[in-house]
Order: sequence, then C-alpha cells, then structure tokens
Amino acid sequence: MKQTEGGVTAAKGFSAAGVCASIKYKDRLDMALITSKAPCRAAGTFTQNVVKAAPVVWDQKIVERSSFVQAIVANAGIANACTGAQGMECCEWEAECAGELLGIPKEAVLVASTGVIGMQIPVEKITSGIKMLVQAQKDTLEAGWEAARAIMTTDTVPKQIAVETEIGGKKVTLGGICKGSGMIHPNMCTMLCFITTDANISKEMLQKAVSADVVDSFNMISVDGDTSTNDTLLVLANGLAGNPEITQEGRDYDAFCEALHFVTISLAKKMAGDGEGATALFEAKVVGAATKEDARKLAKSVICSSLTKAAVFGHDANWGRILCALGYSGAAFDPENVDLYLESRAGRLHIFGNGVACDYSEKEAANILSQPEVTALADMHMGGEEASAWGCDLSYDYVRINADYRS
Amino acid sequence: MKQTEGGVTAAKGFSAAGVCASIKYKDRLDMALITSKAPCRAAGTFTQNVVKAAPVVWDQKIVERSSFVQAIVANAGIANACTGAQGMECCEWEAECAGELLGIPKEAVLVASTGVIGMQIPVEKITSGIKMLVQAQKDTLEAGWEAARAIMTTDTVPKQIAVETEIGGKKVTLGGICKGSGMIHPNMCTMLCFITTDANISKEMLQKAVSADVVDSFNMISVDGDTSTNDTLLVLANGLAGNPEITQEGRDYDAFCEALHFVTISLAKKMAGDGEGATALFEAKVVGAATKEDARKLAKSVICSSLTKAAVFGHDANWGRILCALGYSGAAFDPENVDLYLESRAGRLHIFGNGVACDYSEKEAANILSQPEVTALADMHMGGEEASAWGCDLSYDYVRINADYRS
Repeated sequence: MKQTEGGVTAAKGFSAAGVCASIKYKDRLDMALITSKAPCRAAGTFTQNVVKAAPVVWDQKIVERSSFVQAIVANAGIANACTGAQGMECCEWEAECAGELLGIPKEAVLVASTGVIGMQIPVEKITSGIKMLVQAQKDTLEAGWEAARAIMTTDTVPKQIAVETEIGGKKVTLGGICKGSGMIHPNMCTMLCFITTDANISKEMLQKAVSADVVDSFNMISVDGDTSTNDTLLVLANGLAGNPEITQEGRDYDAFCEALHFVTISLAKKMAGDGEGATALFEAKVVGAATKEDARKLAKSVICSSLTKAAVFGHDANWGRILCALGYSGAAFDPENVDLYLESRAGRLHIFGNGVACDYSEKEAANILSQPEVTALADMHMGGEEASAWGCDLSYDYVRINADYRS
Repeated sequence: MKQTEGGVTAAKGFSAAGVCASIKYKDRLDMALITSKAPCRAAGTFTQNVVKAAPVVWDQKIVERSSFVQAIVANAGIANACTGAQGMECCEWEAECAGELLGIPKEAVLVASTGVIGMQIPVEKITSGIKMLVQAQKDTLEAGWEAARAIMTTDTVPKQIAVETEIGGKKVTLGGICKGSGMIHPNMCTMLCFITTDANISKEMLQKAVSADVVDSFNMISVDGDTSTNDTLLVLANGLAGNPEITQEGRDYDAFCEALHFVTISLAKKMAGDGEGATALFEAKVVGAATKEDARKLAKSVICSSLTKAAVFGHDANWGRILCALGYSGAAFDPENVDLYLESRAGRLHIFGNGVACDYSEKEAANILSQPEVTALADMHMGGEEASAWGCDLSYDYVRINADYRS
C-alpha cells in the first residue's frame, strides 16, 4: 500500500468537476460533481442528529435502496437543512437534472450540501451549476482537486488523499476529498467526505467496511463538539480494477479496509488540523486502557475540552485540564496510576505521574506545544487497549468566524 | 418567601471572613471562612469527575460521617487537585489548624479550594491565612460579602443571595455565596457554592433536598462543558431559627426546598452570566417536551453548543445552530413540529416553525440578541414537560483568559 497522487479521480473510471455557481458565495468554486463511467456500489454513513438536512434524507434512501449509483452533486454555501418540503424537492430536482444530463436515473444520483442552515437553495442557480458541472467534468487529477476546492466552506485548504494497494493480484486505488471545518463532531462532521475506488467489492461488504471504519476515524475527530445536520460520508466503488469481487471477510477485504482506513484517517486529520481558527492539529492518544471503548472515550474527551484547547493555543502546558478531561470522560481509572506526556516533533516530555506533576521544564513544554502538530499521550496502565482522537486548538479566530458566520 | 440582604451571614448564628493570604494571587482576598456558633447538619454534592481534588475527598468523608460541622475554610488560586498524598495532608492540616483555633474537632471543618490544578498549596501561607480568618470573622453582612469576594478566581463579580421564608411559624433564612467561572459544567461546576441556613432540618432531609435541587439548578448550567475536579456545593443548617425539626416530607419540607431552590437558581444564573469572557447570560428554555429528562437534555445541549454561543456573542440569529443542538441532544423529536423563539427584554420573536424559517426581521432579532440576558425558547409540542438551562456566549475573552491562565 502506498500513497499516490490525487483524490477522487485517482481511481479508474472517475471524473470530477468544480464550478462557480454563485449559490451563496461569489467568485469561488461552490459546486462539485463526481461521476463514474461504470455503475458503482455505494455505501455511506450519515449524521446521527435528529435534525437531518434534506440531502442526508435523500442519500440515505438512495444508498439503502438503489441497485447502483453513478454520480454525486454537491454544493457549498447553503446546507439545505431545516428547509422542509421545499428542501426535499430541491434534492430530487438536483438528482433528476443531473441524471437527465448524464443519462442515468435520478436514483443513481447522490446529493450533498454544506453551509448555512435554514436557507433555501436557489433552484435556477443550482440548475445552471449542474449544467456547467456536467460539461466541465474530466478524469484528470486536477479535476478532482477542483471538486475538493468547490466543497470548502470555512476550510482554509482543500483536502484530498489517494492510495494504491494490491487486491487479488490487481492494483486497486482509493481516493477521497472532504471538507470541515466547523460544526465538526462527527457522530457519523458539517463534514462532507466523498471517497471513490475502482475496487470490486459487494455492496454489503463495502457498507460493512465503511461502518466499521468511521468508529476510529471520522467519529474520533472534533472541532467544536457540534454534530452537524449534514454530516455525510459516501464511498463509491465501480469495480474497474478488475479484482475478484470481495464478498466476504479475508485477505482481500482486509487489504481494502487497510487502504480505506489510510484514506479516512488522512482526511480526518486534515479536517481536525484545519478546524475553524485552528493553529495546530491536536491529537490525544490513550494507551493502556482497560477496554477499546474506554480508550475512545478518554481520547475524545481530551480533544473536546475547550479549556485544554485554549491552553494548546496559548502553548501553556496546563496538564491539569487534560487530566480533568480524562476524569469526566465516563471511563473509570485511578488518577494515581496515569502517566501523561506531551509530544511533538520538538520532543517528548513526561509531565504527570504518580499522582503529581513531574519536574519538567515549562520552557521545553511550551516549545513542544508551539509546533503545528501536538500530541497529549496518556498511559492509563489498566490494560492493552488504545485509541487516538484528533482536534485542534481554540483560538480567537474560532470566535471571529462564528460570531457572524452568516454575513 | 422574599429575597433579603446578604449571603452566608444572613441566617442566624453564622459568621464569615475574607483575607489576603497570598496563596497565589497578590493584593486581593483569597481565603474565606464561614463558621456557625452552633453545630450544623451538613449536606453536599460534589464533582462526578473521576479525578477529584483533595478537598472534595476530604469533604465527602466529613459530610458522610461527621455528626456535625461548624466551619468551612476555602482558598482561591490553587485547586489542590492532582496533588497526591501531600494534597490530602494539606486538607487535614487546614481542618486541624482551623479546628484548634475555633475549639472544634477537625472532623467539623470542611475545606474547599479552586484555582490551578497540580500545584501544591504552600502550608505556611495557608496556616497564617487561617489564623487571620479566625481573628477577622464577624457575623455582619459585610463579612459574608468579603467571603464571596475571597473565593473568586476569574469571576468578575462576587456572587451572593439570601432569602427569608416561614417554616413552622418561624422566620427561616437561607443565604449563599458561589464562584464560577470557567471549567463550569457541573455534574455536580470549578464551582464552589456554600449555603448557610438557620433552618432546623434533619441531616437526612437536608441531603435529600440538596440532591434533588441540583438536578435543575447547578447541573443545568455550563460555561465551557468542562466538569471540574473541584465542584463542591455545601449546605450548613444550624437550627437556630427554632422551627420544629423537619424530619419528613410535607409542608415545612416543601417551604424549605422552595427557598433553597430560589438560592441555588439565583446563584446558578449568576455563575452562568459571569462565565469566562461572557457578555450575556444565555438561557435555553424547553417546553412541551415528552419527558422531564428530554427537556433537560434539550435545554442543556443548546447552552453547551459552541456555535450557538458564538452566534449569541455576535448577536446573530443563527437559529439553525439551535435546532442542530436540539437535534444532537439525544432526545427524540420531529423537527417539523418545533417552534423556536428568541426573547429578551427587547421583545420576543418567532423564528422557526413548520419545519422552516419564519419571516422575521433580522434587525429585530439582532436587537433581541444584544441584551444582557437572552433566551432561546423551544416548544417541542410533544408533551407537558419543561426545563431551563443557563450558559453564556463564547467571546474572544474566553480564549484570552484560557490561553494563558497559569501565567
């Protein structure tokens, strides 16, 4: 398995485009299209928020019921959430319009939106956007990059990754794009993530792989603790790699899952590191936990702590906040037995052990914390389980961005 | 029942003091003492954080086992949390030292600390502080106010309240002081709250009243979602009002609970409104919920949402974030049936209903949101249960205060 160039157009048979449809933003790409020349098996995971955006409702139905999928239409600027019947009609129109132009049924078209909640998408703009997208689509790596740019909201950088692996003697490629960067606390973020692959894999095994994967990838990141109405992960597999179909667990399935996990973890970390106002990617790694579930709870509690995040922003080794966040995670442990470390490319420091602060240098700690990627490592000394979670620091810019997002 | 002057010295037989012991801060009051001239029944609720500060461990034992309590010694600046055996020894020393000077056993002395986690309290400073406190204590309202000032950390104002009621033909007084204002997400906040009363009530009924009360008072506020290691609520009842002892449920118990709830809700709202960096008290009120537990979850989810809080700071009626927070609260509901309103002393506005935005004036909404106390009201139309939760907006100053708290 090795990382390769590109994103959603890295795998065989996929095309993409990004255009400026002026849905809400002006003078930037705000609509994306991903298509496959062959029918795809589709899998997805979606927000667990009771309030689900219209595109989430549409996609859940398509992923569950359609025999194949061949396109994803996405827009940034307006989330099409809390938009009632009109919002649902808009989704259906998007699918119908794209389907007609692409020569596929509307049931083969997935839709996704991100942006302000509560506004209706202007139908004439999205219609002309879809026409532009269908004309503009290409199978080049650059076209995939434009799709990645077109789904950004407050993201500062586009996010894509691709990987190659070998399955059943054939080269299989997976590539993905995603956007963050606020309202990120995926329980299955306003995260949108689209992954394409040329792997030949049954729909059942594809969904199984995706559902298992998110537990330790997207569900382990948080920017602000707000689970969006629009969180959507879609994975399309068109089978063009020509590997024998993966229909059960085994070596081929494992290879697929490993490659999928590389893509999801890479994209999850990119989202966390580019959280609204973030100056650093902040990882909490828990080792020696009694159970896997405890390890996840502990790690996630630390990266969700506003106080810890503000301290990371201030490069202040306020480890008491980390220990405090472990303490309210819901997992049982003995504080006297916990070892806490801070680490980054600047080094590693033991800061807490035997129930009290270690004799560490505050200057060295501040240096470790001033790096772009910082890890808090907690060894619980209770067992063999571990987990990592990813978030970001809490900065003035988070407040600035969100105090007046709509204007 | 009516509000009256003062705080912890409002009830008969209580004295207090606040002194400058330079525990960590300089040139400000940082130690407080509350004493009763008669032995008190004591009740308390404490942090549910697995990591409990040494004073919490001490107080839990005293409240549970001691036949009476007669004093509370508190300090600000250092939390005495994550301080190991030395931290526990410090608590015992504080109790012993105060007990000796006051002529009561150490088992009648409760202790409380708030401030930085992980530092040891300097024993010589706390010892001289206790001596000063014992000499300075008075039964005046002013002395209670000084105690309220002495327990502040990042609080901008001291917080106290008192109320009079009649029980069994006698005037009964309850008064309290508290401090916030970060790491506030009480599950039973670094909240310290001390309430005194001259009511005559059995220990069992006092604890019952306190435990029932916090569910809808202190446990319904949040500043930043971080449950502290030091949260402590202590209630002392010395019986000097002379009412017939409350030993069971009934009219007297109800009158006591009503007065207690007035004190706790008043103090809880003061804490929420003075959250770190807060410019407004933000209340979420949920009505028409199916169950009381759902109503609490829904209300608390809204006041905990960073995005909603940032929008309140920006006076931006971004109601989509409110609906989103209701959606991930864990309570089931149909978004199509929810009515959302914004209200403050500037008026009341219907902003969401029938699944879509109402036709409201953004200018009017911004005016409502620019008041010092703002309420988001959600009618779920599912039943008759309601609950309120209190928090604050999320401002630049929250980040400033917490990026470098220790220096």
